[in-house]
Amino acid sequence: MAKAGSAERGADAAPGARRRKQHARRQEVLDTAARMFFERGYEATTTQDIGAALGLLKGSVYYYISSKQDLLFELVQQYHDDTREHFEPILASDAPPVDKLRELIMVDTAHTARNLERSTLFYTEWRSLPQERRSVIVAERARHESAVQEWIVAAQAAGAIRPEVDAKIASFAIFGMVNSVYRWFTPDGRKSAEEIGRDFSDLVLGGLLTAAD
Amino acid sequence: MAKAGSAERGADAAPGARRRKQHARRQEVLDTAARMFFERGYEATTTQDIGAALGLLKGSVYYYISSKQDLLFELVQQYHDDTREHFEPILASDAPPVDKLRELIMVDTAHTARNLERSTLFYTEWRSLPQERRSVIVAERARHESAVQEWIVAAQAAGAIRPEVDAKIASFAIFGMVNSVYRWFTPDGRKSAEEIGRDFSDLVLGGLLTAAD
Repeated sequence: MAKAGSAERGADAAPGARRRKQHARRQEVLDTAARMFFERGYEATTTQDIGAALGLLKGSVYYYISSKQDLLFELVQQYHDDTREHFEPILASDAPPVDKLRELIMVDTAHTARNLERSTLFYTEWRSLPQERRSVIVAERARHESAVQEWIVAAQAAGAIRPEVDAKIASFAIFGMVNSVYRWFTPDGRKSAEEIGRDFSDLVLGGLLTAAD
Repeated sequence: MAKAGSAERGADAAPGARRRKQHARRQEVLDTAARMFFERGYEATTTQDIGAALGLLKGSVYYYISSKQDLLFELVQQYHDDTREHFEPILASDAPPVDKLRELIMVDTAHTARNLERSTLFYTEWRSLPQERRSVIVAERARHESAVQEWIVAAQAAGAIRPEVDAKIASFAIFGMVNSVYRWFTPDGRKSAEEIGRDFSDLVLGGLLTAAD
């Protein structure tokens, strides 16, 4: 049994290695496309440009890249999957809603700043995707907005958030602020992605004014 | 003298009326372009489409429209001139810096929401303009950011704004929030452009938390 088991593992290892290699190659294609779209713009970059940067022969580009739009969609999806990955644990946690809100603003701001190429693409080249491809992500983002609105309403019921705050407008304000960080963040700037995330959450929760005002 | 004066006015009236008519016609061209760029996107709209919507004969389109990019630039400039027009009185006023900040957030948010076609163009088609055309506006926007940063620092010195606030990060957060309103505002929504401006300024100044927290 042990022998058969290891023989099976041996038989699985080769396709596993091949899959890993294919996956690594795919990731390399996507990273190169992300960098080129970021530096030159999506419109100005051709599939052949990306192939050349990867050292692919002209004939084999379409083996790796079916279309430029597919690459954009995959990049936008990857960025979005990563966003979901840090959103779900916060959503599932038992922490008080104000703590969830604080955590989300910090983590989402830092995530946007850390993934500058993909987040820039996500926010600026969005309109280059057809309606049906956008709608999947639009639905997911509406879920995030609803969660933030529910947290605000729950925190208002608990007396932690001011009763006059409009939960819907506040959620739009928060995402507008968080999502705009790609416009000016630079990795070699004065503050790290995480520090900016903390500044943003302090600002949203505490406001600018001193408590005395 | 009175007669000579009125003769002069009479002589000026004709070119004045012509100028006003030309100006009105130009405004009509710009409004149509703004609406079409907004509805179909800048890339997808041609100069001939705009001419057809204006009822211009094919041959006379280029009398009114030198290029699509010129129209985009003029629309972006108009939007920006209007922004400056409400910014300058706030900048020049003797009000305490916190009041200036409150006023700017209210007015700028409402302005972005009220001018949905032009503000959307301004934020989404920005990259379609060449570097030298962008740089004029970039310089002007940097002036606004600097002013907000100075107000925050002055308010901190006066004890009105929390000393731990990073003025630069806060100014980016504020403009990120204010500028994102075009993404979701609808003129027939639950709240007016002015009400949203007030909600935004309350949020930035007072934060979400109740004073007790």
